[in-house]
Amino acid sequence: MAAAPGRTTAERAEDGVLRTLAVGALQLEAGGALPEVELAYETWGALNADASNAVLIQHALTGDTHVAQGAGDEPGWWDALVGPGRPVDTEKYFVVAANMLGGCYGSTGPSSLDPDGTPWGSRFPFVTIRDSVRAEARLADRLGIRRWHAVLGGSMGGARALEWAATHPDRVAHAVVVAIGGYSTAEQIALAQAQLLAIRQDPHFRGGDYYGGPAPEAGLGLARRIAHISYRSEAELNFRFGRRGQGAENPLEAPHGAGRRGRYQVESYLDHQASKLVGRFDANSYISLTEALMSHDVGRGRGGLQSALARSRAQFFLASVNSDRLYFPEQSDELARALPGEVPVHSIDAKIGHDGFLTEIGQLGAELRRRVFTL
Amino acid sequence: MAAAPGRTTAERAEDGVLRTLAVGALQLEAGGALPEVELAYETWGALNADASNAVLIQHALTGDTHVAQGAGDEPGWWDALVGPGRPVDTEKYFVVAANMLGGCYGSTGPSSLDPDGTPWGSRFPFVTIRDSVRAEARLADRLGIRRWHAVLGGSMGGARALEWAATHPDRVAHAVVVAIGGYSTAEQIALAQAQLLAIRQDPHFRGGDYYGGPAPEAGLGLARRIAHISYRSEAELNFRFGRRGQGAENPLEAPHGAGRRGRYQVESYLDHQASKLVGRFDANSYISLTEALMSHDVGRGRGGLQSALARSRAQFFLASVNSDRLYFPEQSDELARALPGEVPVHSIDAKIGHDGFLTEIGQLGAELRRRVFTL
Repeated sequence: MAAAPGRTTAERAEDGVLRTLAVGALQLEAGGALPEVELAYETWGALNADASNAVLIQHALTGDTHVAQGAGDEPGWWDALVGPGRPVDTEKYFVVAANMLGGCYGSTGPSSLDPDGTPWGSRFPFVTIRDSVRAEARLADRLGIRRWHAVLGGSMGGARALEWAATHPDRVAHAVVVAIGGYSTAEQIALAQAQLLAIRQDPHFRGGDYYGGPAPEAGLGLARRIAHISYRSEAELNFRFGRRGQGAENPLEAPHGAGRRGRYQVESYLDHQASKLVGRFDANSYISLTEALMSHDVGRGRGGLQSALARSRAQFFLASVNSDRLYFPEQSDELARALPGEVPVHSIDAKIGHDGFLTEIGQLGAELRRRVFTL
Repeated sequence: MAAAPGRTTAERAEDGVLRTLAVGALQLEAGGALPEVELAYETWGALNADASNAVLIQHALTGDTHVAQGAGDEPGWWDALVGPGRPVDTEKYFVVAANMLGGCYGSTGPSSLDPDGTPWGSRFPFVTIRDSVRAEARLADRLGIRRWHAVLGGSMGGARALEWAATHPDRVAHAVVVAIGGYSTAEQIALAQAQLLAIRQDPHFRGGDYYGGPAPEAGLGLARRIAHISYRSEAELNFRFGRRGQGAENPLEAPHGAGRRGRYQVESYLDHQASKLVGRFDANSYISLTEALMSHDVGRGRGGLQSALARSRAQFFLASVNSDRLYFPEQSDELARALPGEVPVHSIDAKIGHDGFLTEIGQLGAELRRRVFTL
C-alpha cells in the first residue's frame, strides 16, 4: 500500500494537482479483467488524524478531476461548492476527486497502453459503474481513507456516489446524489445508443483502433450535439437562439442546394460544443463511460432499488434540477421513496436544464453546510 | 391544364391510388429553381359540382399520400379519420393527399431524374415549406379546386396546412393544424441538425451522390433513431422497455470488450425503427424534408406570426398531444394566441408522445364533425 498523504496541514500535498496511483488488477463485472489499473486523482486540503474528514467528489460523463481551483490558476467545475471557505471547505475537509475508470484524464482507459505497450482501443473491456467504484475503493485504501465523510456527485458522478453507498455500506457517512435517479431508464439508454452509434459509424473509428491515425472527430462531435441538447432545456435553447441565423449566415439562402445554406445560430452553437469536446476528449473513452452509465442500476442483483439501499448506513442528500429533461426530477423522487426514512429531494431552480447541476450548484451550499458539512 | 377528375360519383377516380401531375417549373424561395415539378397524389371520393367539398390532407416528415385505405388493401395512416362514414367522410368529401416536394414517394425530389436523366442528388435545391405549398396550389388548380373546404395535417403536415392558410388566404376555408406550432424552434432545429449530420457523415453519402452505389443506410438509421426518441414520450419508452435486455441478450455481459455486449430492449426497438425507415425512405429526401421543416416559420417576411395569420380567411382548428415533447402543446397555445378571435386548442390525450397525432387522431373525430366536416 502506498503511503497515505500527510495528515497534517504541514504535510499536505499540493491542492488540485493531478497524481496517479496504481490500484492493481481488476476483475470486471461484465466479464474480462484489466491486469493493472491506475487511477488519476487530485486532492485539496489534508486528511485529519483520524481520517474522518475525507470527501470524494465524482465527476460527470466528460468531466475531470479538477473540481476546484488549486495551486494553479485553472478554475474548477464546482468552485462554487468546493474551496477554502466554501460549503465543502478545503481548510477543514480533505477532498479527493478521481478520474473514472475508462476515462481519458489519467486513469486507465481505452487510450492507455496495455502490458505490451499498445493502446487498448477496441480491446478495452466493458466497465460498469460498479467496476469504477471498486477501483476507487482501492484508491481510498491507499490514501488511508477507511470511510468517507461524504461522497458527492451530479449526473454520472451521482450514480457513482449512490453506487458507493450501496457497494460499501459502511464506508460512506453521507451520499450526496444530484440530478440522477437509481438507474438509467430506457429513455437514457436510447439517447446513449444514438451517441454510441454516432461514434462507431465514423469511418475513422475503425472499430476503436484509430490511435496513430485520424480520430473519429465527426462522430464524437455528433454524439456531443445529441447529448448537449439533452443537457439543456428546450426553453433555454429557444430563448437563447430562437430562429436567428448565425452572424451574417442566412439559413434561408441556399442557391446551390441543400447542405450549403447558412446555419441557424443554434447549429453554430452546437458545432462549437462539439468542437470543444473533440479537442479535449477521447472517443473510445466517451463510449466506455457512456456504456458504464447505461449500466447504472444500483438495484441490479441486489433485490431491487429499495433493498440495495436499505443496507447502506449513509445519510442521503438528494437534489434534482427542476428543468432537467435528461434526469427528470421524478427519478430523484423515486429514488428518495426507495430510501429508508424520509429523505427530501432538494430542488435546484434553473432554467438551463440538466447542466444546472454544474452552473447552479451553489444553491445547495447552505443546505449542504447544515446537513453534511458541519465542521 | 389537365382535366379535372370526375365531378360526379360515376366519374370518380379510383380511391387511394397513386397518380402524378406535372405542375411546371418552380422558382424557389431560397434561390435556384426546379425546371419541371411533378407531384404524386391520391384521391378519395369525388369533387362535387361546385368544387366546394375538396379536402387536402398533408403528410408528416416521412409520411406518404396513403392517408386512407382505398381500392387496394393497404391501410391508411389516418384511417380513423378518413374514409366512408368517417369524420372526413369520403362519400361526401373529395380528399386529396400530395407527396411533398422533395419527397421520395412520387413527387419531384433528390432521387428524381434531372432534365439530363441523372438523379439530382447533391444538386437538388433547398426547398421550403412555402415552395411545397406553391407547388400544391398548382396541383389544386389542375384538379379544378379553387378553394379547399379544409386543409389538414399533423406535425410537418400541420406546418403545410398552416402555410396554406397564410400563403393563400382565400383558398382555405378551414385549416386543421395538429401537433405543431407557428414555426420550428431552436430546439427542433437542433434535433434536426443532428439528424442531418448523421446522414451526411455516413461515408456512403458521398455528398448526396450515392445513387447507383450503396445508400447511407447507417446514417439514415441513426437519424431515425434520434427522431424516433423525440416522437415518443420518455414515459412510453420507460414503461414499454425499462432496462430489460433484448430476448436472450444480456446488456451486462461483454467478456470481449465494449460494443459487443447484449442489447437493451430499447436499443433493439430503435434498431428496428431504423431498419424499417431505411427500407422505405431515401436519405436525400430525408435531408430535403428535414431542412424544409427547419424553415417552417409562417411569420417569416410577413411581419410575424400574428400579422401573417391575420390575413387568412380560414377558420382554424388546432390540436396538440398532451405528452408531446417535440412539438410542445405550449407551441400550439402560442399559435392560438396569434390567431384572430378565440381559437381553442383541442387536446389529444395520449401517453405515447408526438406520435399520438397518428395513433390517437380518432379523438378529434367528433369535434371535427361538429366544427369542420358538417356535411
